[in-house]
Amino acid sequence: MSCSEFELISKYFRCRGKHDQTVQCGIGDDAAIIQIPEHMELVVTTDTLLQGTHFPTCTSAADIAYKALAVNLSDMAAMGAMPRWALLAITLPDNDETWLAQFADSFFETAGQYQLSLIGGDMSRGPLSVNVQIQGLVPTGTALRRSAAQQNDFIYVTGTLGDAGVGLDIITQQCSVAQQHKEFFIRRFNRPEINIATGQQLRSLANSAIDISDGLLADLGHLLSASSVGADINMEEIPLSSAMQSCIDQNTAWNYALTAGDDYHLCFTASAAQQIIEHLKTNNIATTCIGRITASGKLRCLRSDGTEFQPTGSAYSHF
Amino acid sequence: MSCSEFELISKYFRCRGKHDQTVQCGIGDDAAIIQIPEHMELVVTTDTLLQGTHFPTCTSAADIAYKALAVNLSDMAAMGAMPRWALLAITLPDNDETWLAQFADSFFETAGQYQLSLIGGDMSRGPLSVNVQIQGLVPTGTALRRSAAQQNDFIYVTGTLGDAGVGLDIITQQCSVAQQHKEFFIRRFNRPEINIATGQQLRSLANSAIDISDGLLADLGHLLSASSVGADINMEEIPLSSAMQSCIDQNTAWNYALTAGDDYHLCFTASAAQQIIEHLKTNNIATTCIGRITASGKLRCLRSDGTEFQPTGSAYSHF
Repeated sequence: MSCSEFELISKYFRCRGKHDQTVQCGIGDDAAIIQIPEHMELVVTTDTLLQGTHFPTCTSAADIAYKALAVNLSDMAAMGAMPRWALLAITLPDNDETWLAQFADSFFETAGQYQLSLIGGDMSRGPLSVNVQIQGLVPTGTALRRSAAQQNDFIYVTGTLGDAGVGLDIITQQCSVAQQHKEFFIRRFNRPEINIATGQQLRSLANSAIDISDGLLADLGHLLSASSVGADINMEEIPLSSAMQSCIDQNTAWNYALTAGDDYHLCFTASAAQQIIEHLKTNNIATTCIGRITASGKLRCLRSDGTEFQPTGSAYSHF
Repeated sequence: MSCSEFELISKYFRCRGKHDQTVQCGIGDDAAIIQIPEHMELVVTTDTLLQGTHFPTCTSAADIAYKALAVNLSDMAAMGAMPRWALLAITLPDNDETWLAQFADSFFETAGQYQLSLIGGDMSRGPLSVNVQIQGLVPTGTALRRSAAQQNDFIYVTGTLGDAGVGLDIITQQCSVAQQHKEFFIRRFNRPEINIATGQQLRSLANSAIDISDGLLADLGHLLSASSVGADINMEEIPLSSAMQSCIDQNTAWNYALTAGDDYHLCFTASAAQQIIEHLKTNNIATTCIGRITASGKLRCLRSDGTEFQPTGSAYSHF
């Protein structure tokens, strides 16, 4: 006999993960009840991943679970918040228990790494989609925002850019690379790094921050718009992975770096220059200064000879 | 030129509703930031409505928005919580702005009635689905739960049962009723009452509570199971609307009342009898005592002659 959604929730999602003293009531009532410590603000975000839109049909259950958490954790990182509690609303085409077991194992493995407790959710039958909501904490008044970039701030990014975009194009057979680099790119698409520790360090270092989910141009554009400033990017400073440099010509690589989404690195601005990089370097966080905030209101991508690089792609839009 | 999701969010969802001092950062950053008052616990819930599963394809945008809030507000009511903040993750097949405008107008009208601020969300392209998450507040330690029903408690329900189920069957042409009652039933399906004020009053009156989303038998069953008790229901006491009594024969009406979902009334248990009804009556809350909690571990539906009524339907299960 097949399981009802209540039986599936009980079997795969209830009573997993460590006991969390802040959770007064978790999965299994009409709503969950949590206690918020004093002097903390609550930071909340939600993102949905749809099959065929946010991940290809061939993506494994384990990778989907990881990424559904990663895209939300990335929002927490961009605010400098500590993730604490998650809700999971999942829509499944059928009750494939092998799939569910793999999904749940990966979900709880990743959640456990970030002290994240699953406290509730919802399960329905329909086209595969995974919605996660995360609640996190930040000391009152200290959250990073998009809207506080200052003129002359240096602009930084963590990690290397564009790799996830190449990974997606490899999966969808729109790009081919040498065999030895394939796994690297695909992993960057399916298993983006989660920058929680970096975000928390940036609370005292950065003026503004955003995560790069839709590509550097789109996301830095949001930050500039929210802060009412412009930026000059030095194209030669854009950090590219060695795999990218060895497989992809420079203009194409720059296009990926500027317009491809799914990297989930952080982009932030700060008034100090070298000390930021030194500080993050001692914590093993690869960070690159890629330009400056300007008063122009424009976002320019400049080559070292002063000419402007015009990317041919554009950020993904759902509509 | 068609709008991107960012333009649609800005046009229809940002900067609507009243200013809310607790919202330090709302729509437009990576995450929202809210302040939780002292001596309060946070109550969180999420529910997804899928076209074709939770509502028929012909349902209006305004009704979908109302119901997406109502099903989550109903969970808040069942915990005795005050709803405060909402996230909205919506998946749309296209950027039909007439639809979106009607959806947003209805969403903010309903949210405004319950002092609910929209603080963030997500918009994607795909099969129509609406996920809402609500965060509410309850004085520490006072939330209603499913798990605290006591032996000999009286069992109560608000409103009349089964009407929404008839409404759905009318819409899907599985049931026909006299023309003058059609609108009543359909409205009960599309626009269920939201029992926030009742839930808050029940905090000091009830031992346990749940909302009736999947039908009385299923939801009371969850409450009994969580409380490790049983119940005897008196079938003649089940509250039926006058429309139900005039259109539907008794056995069919009882089936609807016991097994049809979507009523979103509250079911609760309390040790006092008449005083509960009197108290709620003075606040214009229709409440009916339908039975008693027993130690048996079983849920029995008894006619006045002592025989057991066996419903022919069963609660909806997604799998």
